[in-house]
Amino acid sequence: MKNTTYPDKTVINFCPTGMVPTKDMTPFVAITPSEIIEQTHEAYEVGITIAHLHVREEDGTPTYHKSMYREIFEGIRKHCPDLVICGSSSGRNFPEFEKRSEVIELMPDMCSLTLSSLNFVRQASMNAPDMIMSLAQKMNDFGVVPELECFDLGMVNYGKYLISKKIIEGPFYWNLLFGNIAGFQPDFSHIGLALKEIPDDHFVSLAGLGDYQLPISMAAVAMGLGVRIGIEDSIWWDHKRERLSKNVDLVKRTHDLILMAGKELFSAKEFGELGFYNRRKVTD
Amino acid sequence: MKNTTYPDKTVINFCPTGMVPTKDMTPFVAITPSEIIEQTHEAYEVGITIAHLHVREEDGTPTYHKSMYREIFEGIRKHCPDLVICGSSSGRNFPEFEKRSEVIELMPDMCSLTLSSLNFVRQASMNAPDMIMSLAQKMNDFGVVPELECFDLGMVNYGKYLISKKIIEGPFYWNLLFGNIAGFQPDFSHIGLALKEIPDDHFVSLAGLGDYQLPISMAAVAMGLGVRIGIEDSIWWDHKRERLSKNVDLVKRTHDLILMAGKELFSAKEFGELGFYNRRKVTD
Repeated sequence: MKNTTYPDKTVINFCPTGMVPTKDMTPFVAITPSEIIEQTHEAYEVGITIAHLHVREEDGTPTYHKSMYREIFEGIRKHCPDLVICGSSSGRNFPEFEKRSEVIELMPDMCSLTLSSLNFVRQASMNAPDMIMSLAQKMNDFGVVPELECFDLGMVNYGKYLISKKIIEGPFYWNLLFGNIAGFQPDFSHIGLALKEIPDDHFVSLAGLGDYQLPISMAAVAMGLGVRIGIEDSIWWDHKRERLSKNVDLVKRTHDLILMAGKELFSAKEFGELGFYNRRKVTD
Repeated sequence: MKNTTYPDKTVINFCPTGMVPTKDMTPFVAITPSEIIEQTHEAYEVGITIAHLHVREEDGTPTYHKSMYREIFEGIRKHCPDLVICGSSSGRNFPEFEKRSEVIELMPDMCSLTLSSLNFVRQASMNAPDMIMSLAQKMNDFGVVPELECFDLGMVNYGKYLISKKIIEGPFYWNLLFGNIAGFQPDFSHIGLALKEIPDDHFVSLAGLGDYQLPISMAAVAMGLGVRIGIEDSIWWDHKRERLSKNVDLVKRTHDLILMAGKELFSAKEFGELGFYNRRKVTD
């Protein structure tokens, strides 16, 4: 993607929950379905294009249940008609394909597809080639468009490989995530190299993990890319770690940046018309 | 330079005049000595670390006269004690060494040193090796520290060559300028490559030319670098070119970005203590 492709429009991808933050870490993380619905609604009122959603058990453990995703998707859809809804197919503590892929059956606009195995600071996250292929195939079967998640250059390459083999068909929306100790660093040249590998008619958002959330989101807005933002990626407001973030405040700050850059958000509808999700036939 | 070297502090380098903008292009460019003094004072009140200054004839033509630089430096110094003053040794329409180097004799804190010849969109700008060496030598003789100006990777390399030959001695403050058609582009990988070439104990500001001023300044603040800002580099406030900038408003917007990033400016004093200018002996 060229960072001059869309000079006037950008994307906020809202990620309020993730698999890591707990209520012990921050009271502001959205854990229950009603919290996720409410915080997404609140962010939608400020303005977001995509909501990237995970579900949790009552005790906060990351889970996969279709019934919970259904409750959340329906609750969000009621209040937020012009929003791209993306379900996570991540599987850090439920590795089975059946579990990870349940959410696809609900046919949200997108489901995430992480493009390789990787290490985080304390644990491995497995996404073996056959798992990626199976998830991609099931997304195709249900008419769900993958949100391509990359933590390093090899993942970008694997996405291009899947495209070249016609296992998935673009254009795609990509999240590039910076600051994981065993992946992309928040460095101009890492961002630049990754972008040069992604075709010009695709769309890229940048995410900064931990202390890098604000620098990366600011650099993304500055240079014409989308922003993934939310407590999933960082619980802190500031690099001095003096204040915990609220999800809605992160969205507001990103809006301030977008306003300063003289841009506005893509509506979900516009984003769909560019082909980044919703490729189902009208009769579906 | 690593973009994590100074997590809490940054620099605004204010460039209100340059050699290109005329009153016909924008009424807000500072041309006369009193305009330059006044606008620099105004920017200083908002907060700047460095003022990068050019002088003009009464009719607006770029010039070099020591007497005019003296008037400006003295006028600025009267109101702005904690400010790094940098005179331009650029010579687009007065190629002689004697003219270009007059300003050095006034012993401002820094003088600019462009590190190669280059093309702009309509004209060449000559900085032959012997001119660069002579300017550097005269700066050394007068205890003036060069502000290293680079429009492309080869200029960064030439700066490192001068250092390796001990013709100049670091650490230095560098301006990297992005968006000239025959130089660095406003691209993450160009910025990243240049930064990797610059030693870690040096300090870098980024400048975006024309429509790239805001994107590059925002990316610079985001990623821990300094910002060069002012009408010298762009007359427009916005990429839609609907509004002409005032110099002070550009400084204010840069402050807003710095505030959002949770940072503050180096004072001139702090910047000097890091060794980026003012290496004259106390007895000088």
